[in-house]
Amino acid sequence: MANGERVVLGMGAGELFQLLRDGRPRTRSELAAVTGLSRSTISSRIDELVAADLVTPVADALSTGGRPPARIAMNPSAKLVVAADLGATHGAVALLDLAGTILVEHRARLEISLGPERVLEWVLSSVTRLLEGIARPAGDVVAVGVGLPGPVEHSTGKPSNPPIMPGWNGYDVPTHLQRRWPVPVLVDNDVNILALGEQAVGWPGARHMVVVKVSTGIGAGIIANGILQRGADGSAGDIGHIPIQRAAGVPCRCGNRGCVEAVAAGPAIAAGLAAAGVPATSVDDVLELIDAGDLRAVRAVRQAGRDLGEVLNMCVSIVNPSLIVIGGSMARAHEHLIAGVRETVYSRSIPLATEHLTIASSRAGEHAGVIGAGVLAIQHALAPEQVTATLLDRSRAM
Amino acid sequence: MANGERVVLGMGAGELFQLLRDGRPRTRSELAAVTGLSRSTISSRIDELVAADLVTPVADALSTGGRPPARIAMNPSAKLVVAADLGATHGAVALLDLAGTILVEHRARLEISLGPERVLEWVLSSVTRLLEGIARPAGDVVAVGVGLPGPVEHSTGKPSNPPIMPGWNGYDVPTHLQRRWPVPVLVDNDVNILALGEQAVGWPGARHMVVVKVSTGIGAGIIANGILQRGADGSAGDIGHIPIQRAAGVPCRCGNRGCVEAVAAGPAIAAGLAAAGVPATSVDDVLELIDAGDLRAVRAVRQAGRDLGEVLNMCVSIVNPSLIVIGGSMARAHEHLIAGVRETVYSRSIPLATEHLTIASSRAGEHAGVIGAGVLAIQHALAPEQVTATLLDRSRAM
Repeated sequence: MANGERVVLGMGAGELFQLLRDGRPRTRSELAAVTGLSRSTISSRIDELVAADLVTPVADALSTGGRPPARIAMNPSAKLVVAADLGATHGAVALLDLAGTILVEHRARLEISLGPERVLEWVLSSVTRLLEGIARPAGDVVAVGVGLPGPVEHSTGKPSNPPIMPGWNGYDVPTHLQRRWPVPVLVDNDVNILALGEQAVGWPGARHMVVVKVSTGIGAGIIANGILQRGADGSAGDIGHIPIQRAAGVPCRCGNRGCVEAVAAGPAIAAGLAAAGVPATSVDDVLELIDAGDLRAVRAVRQAGRDLGEVLNMCVSIVNPSLIVIGGSMARAHEHLIAGVRETVYSRSIPLATEHLTIASSRAGEHAGVIGAGVLAIQHALAPEQVTATLLDRSRAM
Repeated sequence: MANGERVVLGMGAGELFQLLRDGRPRTRSELAAVTGLSRSTISSRIDELVAADLVTPVADALSTGGRPPARIAMNPSAKLVVAADLGATHGAVALLDLAGTILVEHRARLEISLGPERVLEWVLSSVTRLLEGIARPAGDVVAVGVGLPGPVEHSTGKPSNPPIMPGWNGYDVPTHLQRRWPVPVLVDNDVNILALGEQAVGWPGARHMVVVKVSTGIGAGIIANGILQRGADGSAGDIGHIPIQRAAGVPCRCGNRGCVEAVAAGPAIAAGLAAAGVPATSVDDVLELIDAGDLRAVRAVRQAGRDLGEVLNMCVSIVNPSLIVIGGSMARAHEHLIAGVRETVYSRSIPLATEHLTIASSRAGEHAGVIGAGVLAIQHALAPEQVTATLLDRSRAM
């Protein structure tokens, strides 16, 4: 009996945990009946879950003596995950329970360009204070999720030629953090964790979704069949450097010319306004102008929406989502950005792909990043079986 | 115990079948030990498989009397699937066993524009003759897979506004075929079945692959995490109508202007050559000119490759495949088409996405379509459990 065969069938402790996630206590006999597993298999899997503190025996209030009922239930608050959402100029860290609820969060202005040593030390010391604040030991942390503002090789957790992160290229983020917490550390780009956060909080039923982040840069997280798609090297959804016609010849920070990011991201909009004599040097300036009803800013943001719409048209043709969510700081420009996107997408794409397509603003708001980093950590903490169970669940719904 | 709970755990008969696919006979005790399932669960699942003729008891040559050993093994040749690959001007039907091997095949010139009644009657009569030829009853057919040259709503099997298929819009293909064979009928577009066929025969290990078909039109089948991606409405991979700069203003058969298909598909190449005084009215003419070494044809095909490369660059940014396979009749233009594709893709895309990217010609050849249609039918015949097992298997490998 090759060991590999058991893997194919995948009936692990994590799947039992998945079954227990509704919070209802169950006996071992009930679990055996539901799963078709033998009593000895159930017992060994339950022992694993109890040892990991993920489930716990429950006293039965109706018990009137005799043998204890030996019911068990999920224990989401017994363990924690650490979540870190690191942007170009901000940082957020949080502790979440295993149900994905934020227990405590800390945010600060933080320049990613300070380099990995200083930024990750900020993460370590901030989390230490958060743990102290809620009086939990570091040993309660079962996994860490980190989002970074650039390309990351997801399998190793190392940034890969990130354009705005000097000193980070190839830096071993997991090993640095594991010196403090010897647990799995999952690293992904900020856009993918935004997509996971939006899915978890804003659109739990969405199975085919493109989540776009428009701020200093432009990127997308792609969810297909309910699963975040990373592609072969973790660069799926890297739409900011797709060329569009209006950007022809415009230099981009990636070294190429003509990328959509070079005309439609926040800094490009600000630069365009500044060149036309409107005082704007940052994304915040653009948002203030929009708030004040400045027509030149409104026009510039709407045009950026049209430019973004050109690239999203390509996404619609290639991925065929039922939902496009626009997030990131520029999405705060009221309806102007999204109006431009809608104008382009609905005027061009093929009917089959746009008939049922919704284009909407982010729902998860500023917490989407840490929630997504938390989801990344939780999925791994319960993996591979938990991820498998999710796949199972979803393949049934197809 | 809600019935839905069992579904989440998904230990069905199809997964046992998956376990038995290596062909090795096993006893019920062995299967119980491997799976952790109880004997009673195993027995009921095995009974289902035996009743469906998918597994069969095996006599043990070493048995020397006493109780029979009661070993069971997979029985791939007990049942059949019908596969039909219908193109714009050709048709192919085949019978495959449950291991995906073609038992018998029939090909003919066939105009899809004859309409659904006549084309599907051709399928029915051709398959009836094939069944007679190998002396198998229609009752052995467990599922039917069909590929059509246009958009298909996969969930219903109905074509959706197909541009080159007059009379087919919304036609209920499954119901028509089910009058003869009351079994599941799966319908998909020709490009998706090409991708399934390439994956099955040419690149069984490829997990992130874009299979492009260039012939009368241009389309792609996208495989991510080993799974064919259809998107929300079945139109994922519909890349032929993405606009590119060189096509600006050129009318396309879809009603829009500027689509890549309007300059880079076979008929567009032929028309471009004809306009320059080179005698070419069809894809075959272009291929003949290439075979004869005509430099104008070589240049035109190479330019079409560059145009296609522009769109594939977008696919690389959005999907991040590790493999792009170029198929369809224009792929027979030796290395000229693929050389143009490589020229564009390798000069533009971001390093992380192209460092490990292979661009190759189709390996499965002219049988890819019927094999893919067969795979579509087989996956469903063993579904949902078999599909689930595949997902499980792949999620482990992630």
